[in-house]
Amino acid sequence: MANIAFIGLGNMGAPMAANLIKAGRELALYDVVPEAVQKLAGPKARPAASARQAVKDADFVISMLPAGSHVEDLYLGGGQVLRHAKPSALLIDCSTIAPATAKRVAQAARDQGFAMIDAPVSGGTGGAANATLTFIVGGAGDALERARPLLAQMGKNIFHAGTNGDGQMAKVCNNMLLGVLMIGTSEALSLGVANGLDPKVLSDIIGKSSGRNWSLEVYNPYPGVMADAPAARGYQGGFGVDLMLKDLRLAVESAVLSKTPTPLGALAHNLYDIHSKSGAGPLDFSSIITLLKRPQGGA
Amino acid sequence: MANIAFIGLGNMGAPMAANLIKAGRELALYDVVPEAVQKLAGPKARPAASARQAVKDADFVISMLPAGSHVEDLYLGGGQVLRHAKPSALLIDCSTIAPATAKRVAQAARDQGFAMIDAPVSGGTGGAANATLTFIVGGAGDALERARPLLAQMGKNIFHAGTNGDGQMAKVCNNMLLGVLMIGTSEALSLGVANGLDPKVLSDIIGKSSGRNWSLEVYNPYPGVMADAPAARGYQGGFGVDLMLKDLRLAVESAVLSKTPTPLGALAHNLYDIHSKSGAGPLDFSSIITLLKRPQGGA
Amino acid sequence: MANIAFIGLGNMGAPMAANLIKAGRELALYDVVPEAVQKLAGPKARPAASARQAVKDADFVISMLPAGSHVEDLYLGGGQVLRHAKPSALLIDCSTIAPATAKRVAQAARDQGFAMIDAPVSGGTGGAANATLTFIVGGAGDALERARPLLAQMGKNIFHAGTNGDGQMAKVCNNMLLGVLMIGTSEALSLGVANGLDPKVLSDIIGKSSGRNWSLEVYNPYPGVMADAPAARGYQGGFGVDLMLKDLRLAVESAVLSKTPTPLGALAHNLYDIHSKSGAGPLDFSSIITLLKRPQGGA
Amino acid sequence: MANIAFIGLGNMGAPMAANLIKAGRELALYDVVPEAVQKLAGPKARPAASARQAVKDADFVISMLPAGSHVEDLYLGGGQVLRHAKPSALLIDCSTIAPATAKRVAQAARDQGFAMIDAPVSGGTGGAANATLTFIVGGAGDALERARPLLAQMGKNIFHAGTNGDGQMAKVCNNMLLGVLMIGTSEALSLGVANGLDPKVLSDIIGKSSGRNWSLEVYNPYPGVMADAPAARGYQGGFGVDLMLKDLRLAVESAVLSKTPTPLGALAHNLYDIHSKSGAGPLDFSSIITLLKRPQGGA
Repeated sequence: MANIAFIGLGNMGAPMAANLIKAGRELALYDVVPEAVQKLAGPKARPAASARQAVKDADFVISMLPAGSHVEDLYLGGGQVLRHAKPSALLIDCSTIAPATAKRVAQAARDQGFAMIDAPVSGGTGGAANATLTFIVGGAGDALERARPLLAQMGKNIFHAGTNGDGQMAKVCNNMLLGVLMIGTSEALSLGVANGLDPKVLSDIIGKSSGRNWSLEVYNPYPGVMADAPAARGYQGGFGVDLMLKDLRLAVESAVLSKTPTPLGALAHNLYDIHSKSGAGPLDFSSIITLLKRPQGGA
Repeated sequence: MANIAFIGLGNMGAPMAANLIKAGRELALYDVVPEAVQKLAGPKARPAASARQAVKDADFVISMLPAGSHVEDLYLGGGQVLRHAKPSALLIDCSTIAPATAKRVAQAARDQGFAMIDAPVSGGTGGAANATLTFIVGGAGDALERARPLLAQMGKNIFHAGTNGDGQMAKVCNNMLLGVLMIGTSEALSLGVANGLDPKVLSDIIGKSSGRNWSLEVYNPYPGVMADAPAARGYQGGFGVDLMLKDLRLAVESAVLSKTPTPLGALAHNLYDIHSKSGAGPLDFSSIITLLKRPQGGA
Repeated sequence: MANIAFIGLGNMGAPMAANLIKAGRELALYDVVPEAVQKLAGPKARPAASARQAVKDADFVISMLPAGSHVEDLYLGGGQVLRHAKPSALLIDCSTIAPATAKRVAQAARDQGFAMIDAPVSGGTGGAANATLTFIVGGAGDALERARPLLAQMGKNIFHAGTNGDGQMAKVCNNMLLGVLMIGTSEALSLGVANGLDPKVLSDIIGKSSGRNWSLEVYNPYPGVMADAPAARGYQGGFGVDLMLKDLRLAVESAVLSKTPTPLGALAHNLYDIHSKSGAGPLDFSSIITLLKRPQGGA
Repeated sequence: MANIAFIGLGNMGAPMAANLIKAGRELALYDVVPEAVQKLAGPKARPAASARQAVKDADFVISMLPAGSHVEDLYLGGGQVLRHAKPSALLIDCSTIAPATAKRVAQAARDQGFAMIDAPVSGGTGGAANATLTFIVGGAGDALERARPLLAQMGKNIFHAGTNGDGQMAKVCNNMLLGVLMIGTSEALSLGVANGLDPKVLSDIIGKSSGRNWSLEVYNPYPGVMADAPAARGYQGGFGVDLMLKDLRLAVESAVLSKTPTPLGALAHNLYDIHSKSGAGPLDFSSIITLLKRPQGGA
């Protein structure tokens, strides 16, 4: 059976690796935090002392790291993956990083004969735990097909966005739009309530009209409208403001590099930044609605 | 059978009145443009020489006018509807006007013993012609029930937003959000394409992800993605930039009056205004994407 | 000697009236708050029981009221100034109100034979106390000349913006721009400091370069740069956030009515609104910089 | 007498080098375009075949290049300046580039024992021709003092912003603010004129009030207000839209990297980008006002 090296066992990586183990895969595990490795170690999950050791015999290398600098370091720098992995290994980076960085790393990998895909996820820690993640993949079609059985054991939906870096780019586009939808929905609901409308009635009407969108229907930011949304529990849990902010930074950087006007995306970025600076960084991103309302609902 | 006065026979009013006639209703018709009246006149559709004459024996007065000033003039001013209608008549204003104006007119009507509802529509001229309009109603529940059989002959969906003016307010909230969705979607698609993604692939991915929304799925602004969207025919027809601009003005006015921050709504308003000033006023509102792309698709 | 009726003795009106008394003028005083009248009453400053009584023998009527609704009420409504003033009296409204309201009141005054000017001020309570206000006047040139000696006893600069309402409009334009300058300056200084620059050095450089502007040079928002700016005293005193917000609302309303894009003005309006909602309403408007920085100056 | 290598003889570099020659300096000249070198060659201005040859005996190396990539290439890459210059040479980069790039290049220079300053300019081609440029310098104080005599022969004002990269950063902050001032001023004037004010009268009033700023007073964007501004000649010449856009991109990048909210700066960036995409790239940046007005001045 294929050997898998899994590198990066944080909030997302750990449950993803656990799902592969549960599915009967054999893994070599590495993280800079030894405790993260120990928690998952077992008969089929062998701890490795370094990234280099983890990838030595691997047929697949999966990485799930916080930022582009970590990914560059792992594959191109001190991690030495490109030097120590088997030439036949397929490299799968699930981190969310700048498309330009993903392209650069993939190019370096190709230059040394490796196949590589970027496969950033959406679905959060809940999706990681329940193996319902969505993977948005950039890279060659045959590389994706080789990766598919593994991805399918960690997630539910797999999209092919294009060549290397395009998985990151598609995620950036989606999440920039999500940031805009959430603020726009918050404004519409706040405006209605400030003018006497009931937020539930208004949400129902918009949900059947041309303003309908994911953030309104699945993740309504107005407290009291949806029983199971973060708004119902003081915006605890969910997808954090600072994670949305990270994605919006990637979007703004891509927009500047490609000279594409994104006025609403840029403003959304700044509003989340202002919101984070006020102390809301760890709250769910739908808490942005509190920036638009007086604390007591007054006008 | 109930007598209906129908006042305002423009692009929207004419097909709405035609659907009532087709359903067997008896109408008295009035418009400031005599030709508009003549086009619809027939055995069951009697021309009236004035609004005053049209409403004299009416059990229902339906108005469909361009702006709040016309509605005020019809009911409170020179139109003299409140003076000449039967006290038992139900007043139904289908115009899209400022919520504050709708409240004021309805209050004046109530002061003289009339029941009145505001029932602005969405669905455009196509919805008016096919009797598939959506009505968003503000006013008392029993008044809405009296109006329902008529509304059902002109449209498909009927929502009850709240008391007088709330129909207008709910429409304002929905359409402000729609304006934001359309620009946000345009930005996300432009950004993806400028970075090498295929607009159709990207639309598919976002459509199954957290960025999904009405403007992406039903009315995609990127040329070539949807065969039947205005983007496929040079942004001809559809819901005009200047109509969206009118609704965004109502939104901004309501936001200022109610002291509600709507940063994305306000920016959307300004971007549509800039777009209109460049000559795009008569085009479909999804043409806003052209503001964000170089003419030849370059970067 | 000419009789002057002075109506509205709040934070601005009281010191303005006091300066006229100090200059030897004879005044009839009225305010809805009797204590405000009593404080100024004296040999040359006669309390009046009503606006109507105050204006009866006046050659000049000066009003300084919080909002347009008060001005309309004073001149056109319950205050009955247009009914009870002498036809030869010159009406001088120093309130800051919507240009459209100023035009409407002035038109009504003209219709009854009165000369009227709008003369909103800038310079704040300090300028009012020290008679260094700036008056921005709208109305006929000869009316302004009749008013000039009085205005000169309350202020230092007198500008003639145009016909009735234009004084208000010019003030709206200036203050919208001021709101933009203050945020833009705050952004530039925050950005520099976040990147290691000294705010005083950076202010000096910009002050001699193309970024120089009133808010940087006279009213620097960065704490520690200017010893006598509100930033040096925790943003106490000065020109309040809620007053700036009021002016920005007038600007946005004028922009919507005249269909003029003002994207930065509209965003400034929303940022001050967000700032006010967070509790900063009573602070000086240069406190907007705190919205852009982490509390501890971190990044 | 000191030898000077001058590299980069474009629209800015050529007149700057000419001023040094006029002041009696001896130069070695290099540009990738041989004609640019030939135009300036003379008894005291020796053509060099390469950057490497130009710097060989130089006591000062001055570079004036279009973008950061050129600067990195010159000093660190193929240009090999750090390898071939004398260790005692002072390196002066006058290009406008990202502060982060300037820091990186200066660090590499320091690592090899060189003193280096960044000295970006403002003042445009006119300032370059007339030796009235402003230099905003980052680097050690003694390095600046060594450079001062040369800078004083090319410009009028010399500011010391801080350590390496801070010259670039201060320029970025100033120019971001300038971009905001110009749009804010354009909005204020457009709003006033749309409401009947005279642009000259309004400019006079604001120029003596709290809205005063460089763009209003020195570079008024409204046609007809200033005889010698680009607005008086169809926005030909001056400081181009695409140059402003380049500076705003540097600002947005710095804001993202330092996590500093700059909502107005980011919106200004997008508005200039939209303006450029409409074909206005080569026009003066004050032409942004045309984005806000109907072509014929209508509403």
